[in-house]
Amino acid sequence: MTYMRTEIMEQPAALRATIDALLPRAAEAGQLARGTRQVLFIARGTSDNAAVYGSYLIQAYAGRLATLASPSIATTYRSRVDLSGVLAVALSQSGRTDEIVETLTWAGDCGARTLAITNGAESPVAAAADLAFVTEAGAERAVPATKTFTTQLAALAVLALGLGAGLDAGLLRRVPDAIEALLAGELDLEPVVAELADVQGVVVSGRGLAYSAALEIALKLKEACYLHAMGLSYADLLHGPIAVVDARTPAIVVAADAGPTLDGTVDLARRVRDAGARAYAIGGGARLAAASTRALPGPALPEWLAPMGLVVPGQLLTEALARRLGHDPDRPRGLSKITQTA
Amino acid sequence: MTYMRTEIMEQPAALRATIDALLPRAAEAGQLARGTRQVLFIARGTSDNAAVYGSYLIQAYAGRLATLASPSIATTYRSRVDLSGVLAVALSQSGRTDEIVETLTWAGDCGARTLAITNGAESPVAAAADLAFVTEAGAERAVPATKTFTTQLAALAVLALGLGAGLDAGLLRRVPDAIEALLAGELDLEPVVAELADVQGVVVSGRGLAYSAALEIALKLKEACYLHAMGLSYADLLHGPIAVVDARTPAIVVAADAGPTLDGTVDLARRVRDAGARAYAIGGGARLAAASTRALPGPALPEWLAPMGLVVPGQLLTEALARRLGHDPDRPRGLSKITQTA
Repeated sequence: MTYMRTEIMEQPAALRATIDALLPRAAEAGQLARGTRQVLFIARGTSDNAAVYGSYLIQAYAGRLATLASPSIATTYRSRVDLSGVLAVALSQSGRTDEIVETLTWAGDCGARTLAITNGAESPVAAAADLAFVTEAGAERAVPATKTFTTQLAALAVLALGLGAGLDAGLLRRVPDAIEALLAGELDLEPVVAELADVQGVVVSGRGLAYSAALEIALKLKEACYLHAMGLSYADLLHGPIAVVDARTPAIVVAADAGPTLDGTVDLARRVRDAGARAYAIGGGARLAAASTRALPGPALPEWLAPMGLVVPGQLLTEALARRLGHDPDRPRGLSKITQTA
Repeated sequence: MTYMRTEIMEQPAALRATIDALLPRAAEAGQLARGTRQVLFIARGTSDNAAVYGSYLIQAYAGRLATLASPSIATTYRSRVDLSGVLAVALSQSGRTDEIVETLTWAGDCGARTLAITNGAESPVAAAADLAFVTEAGAERAVPATKTFTTQLAALAVLALGLGAGLDAGLLRRVPDAIEALLAGELDLEPVVAELADVQGVVVSGRGLAYSAALEIALKLKEACYLHAMGLSYADLLHGPIAVVDARTPAIVVAADAGPTLDGTVDLARRVRDAGARAYAIGGGARLAAASTRALPGPALPEWLAPMGLVVPGQLLTEALARRLGHDPDRPRGLSKITQTA
């Protein structure tokens, strides 16, 4: 078994350990954020996709503005920006990407409070932050991140609760079981893998909170399968790139089984098929499945937690497709585990 | 001649008219922003790429945080977010996309001051804003936006000046001439068009301010050529998707002729070629040309203004490639001029 597949299967345990460690500490994040008005995420790659989840969750449910920083403002332009009233949150799996450490330090110098979410307890980013939330994913040996991503989402859910989101913390504790059930269930990947093995490109789309899972699935497919995977929000897809779908360019559409984004996603699957392209559903329940060419089930979770489970069929699909294409999913060409960007 | 090509050639005149109309009004934006700390952009599609330019420009040179909003927080989640101290800036070419009008109105209700940048003088978004900057692009008949994009960038440069950016406003007046010179010069598109006609996918990358031009070129190639074009920042590309470039998947790299992002972009072109892929430069002067397989010149403009000219070779390339592939660049499949997303 590949490391990637092993680590996908370890996610329920990693999530359980992370939620056990961090949920009791939600109030510390609330304390740190006292007097701030908004959240600014600092991240790259997979962590950037986790930040998209955090940004939607905090804005939709905690009443605060939450947006993504541009690290090159700190590291390349070396500009000084007024960040008083800002809680800066760095996301880094290793905690050792210089660009992220430097940008978080810069944010503190510009007046922000700082929180690090990292799997590296002894890492530089944890040391640089006012407060560190350490995820309990354990060692990750495959280059494409899986369990470090889903545990980052769990840490972000804890952050949102700490910021006063009106959500039931008890539901967060159900996430590991829901993903365990998903992994134990009947995921009929084979027909989707067979069809994707014949395409060069795919669009992956989702709306709102599910957009983070869509972006992450697109990134996995690029990293491990070298597929031309374009992650696009529902609205940005309709503003132009919908032209790209065709008989050789299918779409993967991602949604929770219920919630305010389901209608739009069902409509999107129909538009993709009207354009002569295949639509593969991940999640979205019976309605999205009926509108799609093929469907993989998502987790039995409410919309605000669903992205932790929605990414899982995409991870499994990536791992299986990489092997089918003759690639080693654990060691994609040109990549290493810690990315340094100068 | 296609409408798209005609409108590409109209850009110097459209920019001249827009700068003449808006530069004298920079102080009005400064007045509106008095007492605010930051800028929040509301946009989709091409306008979103313009917002990326505005966000880097204002953060790098005006000392303010400037980030992108998620419209679905307003339109789908109907959440209330504290936006006191925020200048919300909606970008919409037509000014008639309901989602953008609704999100700007929501921002005002949440406590933000509001500015609209639009080509539609009598449009709903102009009516909904505290202040409107109307671009003077004239009617645009091709579906892929060209002159409405570059005039949006000019309006954003005026906004940055109004917010106190330490930049020479006189240089902005040189932009139309620089683009005119670029359009009159020797752009040897033919070999690049011929080679891109044989690929299905391409990565388009840039760093900092030039990232906006890279995203916009990727969007044009998706819209009009149905190419699997992946617009990625320099750093996000190295965090995974660099795996996707190969002999059949080249990269287009975009940079100003000088400035803090040039070194990284030259390095990126080398890494792309080391991976066995072709690298096409747009701009970046002699150094980026030397590191690349083929090169198209950019405008003779300083880095903060260069994106208005860097996008132009990409627009010309898109128009020529669409025709080569037998598509009508003016009317891509599945698209219309005003996009409504529900």
